[in-house]
Amino acid sequence: MSYEFYYWPGIQGRGEFVRLALEQAGADYVDAARAEGGMEKMQAFVAGDVVGAPPFAPPFLKHGDLIIAQVANILDYLGPRLGLAPMDEAGRIWARQLQLTVTDLVQEAHDTHHPVSTALYYEDQVDEAQRYTAKFLELRVPKYLGYFERVAMRNPFGSGMLIGNGITYPDLSLFQCIAGLRYAFPAAMARIEPDFPQLAALHDRVAGLPNVSAYLASDRRIPFNEHGVFRHYPELDG
Amino acid sequence: MSYEFYYWPGIQGRGEFVRLALEQAGADYVDAARAEGGMEKMQAFVAGDVVGAPPFAPPFLKHGDLIIAQVANILDYLGPRLGLAPMDEAGRIWARQLQLTVTDLVQEAHDTHHPVSTALYYEDQVDEAQRYTAKFLELRVPKYLGYFERVAMRNPFGSGMLIGNGITYPDLSLFQCIAGLRYAFPAAMARIEPDFPQLAALHDRVAGLPNVSAYLASDRRIPFNEHGVFRHYPELDG
Repeated sequence: MSYEFYYWPGIQGRGEFVRLALEQAGADYVDAARAEGGMEKMQAFVAGDVVGAPPFAPPFLKHGDLIIAQVANILDYLGPRLGLAPMDEAGRIWARQLQLTVTDLVQEAHDTHHPVSTALYYEDQVDEAQRYTAKFLELRVPKYLGYFERVAMRNPFGSGMLIGNGITYPDLSLFQCIAGLRYAFPAAMARIEPDFPQLAALHDRVAGLPNVSAYLASDRRIPFNEHGVFRHYPELDG
Repeated sequence: MSYEFYYWPGIQGRGEFVRLALEQAGADYVDAARAEGGMEKMQAFVAGDVVGAPPFAPPFLKHGDLIIAQVANILDYLGPRLGLAPMDEAGRIWARQLQLTVTDLVQEAHDTHHPVSTALYYEDQVDEAQRYTAKFLELRVPKYLGYFERVAMRNPFGSGMLIGNGITYPDLSLFQCIAGLRYAFPAAMARIEPDFPQLAALHDRVAGLPNVSAYLASDRRIPFNEHGVFRHYPELDG
């Protein structure tokens, strides 16, 4: 049974964490909102008229009768099915915990350009964005990356990945965060990254996986742009 | 085997969502950081020196050898064990999805007083806080409450709760959000709440549960204050 995935068609955004998992696993899926009439279908699900468990917002996944929203929830569902998560309870909890910490980082990365309101244009909150981003790059990025660096370093398998010996969905998500932060803040990341060599290696190892690498080179991978979570505004890259 | 719960001892904060579940279930637990020497123990876990799966931040739960961080992850673990979540996969996914939407609301409620940085005092970001909060109260609170109102209204059991016929952990968390928003923004909530009668009823039903009611009247319930997520600053309550 194939997966129907729903997310805004023009951006990587929060949906990209799910797309990467589906692509790495070679899963049978459709990026449904990018197909003809897909946006209307997506909005009907969010309006809640067609299902008992409506999503608050995209992204969400339809699999049979099940509709699953929230990235960490979708990945918790897909992880064991796609061979991208441990199968035991303790391992699943640990993967979910790492993913929820990625979620927090993604929220803060989003707020660098929208610290006041998503209902206002970036141009209407540039001053606040500059104040927010300065603290984000000074304090928060090193704190998050330091945490994940430590997790990778202490992995008892010594694989350089976050969990166990293989690739799990939090590795894919962390790859996406590093790629996104490099896109948004190239100057700041050039200063910050040398402290986190494990994460640079993790990024490269994920980017080099045959399925991921084919995906990144395909037109299924929407390029980074200034509508998604990770946006490059030179005035913020202090 | 009793639960060891770790969170900052002086605030409700994000920990309160877990405390409410433990209390409603009458679980055998200790609020470990409030005990003698508890803060040092908590900080050792976060420093990552004592466990293979260190939390990024409190709150976290220790149960046997397992350390579980992130509120939605903790509640996903506790829910079926405490009789506060459906036991089937679809029901657990739906509970987790609702809880992750609560998490998003809580993050935004937090950002009303800290829109720029948690490393700065509120007093150093009052202007930004006023701009943020105006949009939060105008757009976001009605959007979140409208979503949960619809979920409660469409519950096929007609119980007025979010899921099924009984009390689940997202009900307890939504109660806490409503109580917190009323504390922080009494004037705005007096205007907003009449549109969401199901949620007011849900709040009252949860508050009246014997275990919750006993907890709220006890000194285990830390009062709302201006160090937690929900803070009352009259200048923000537009």
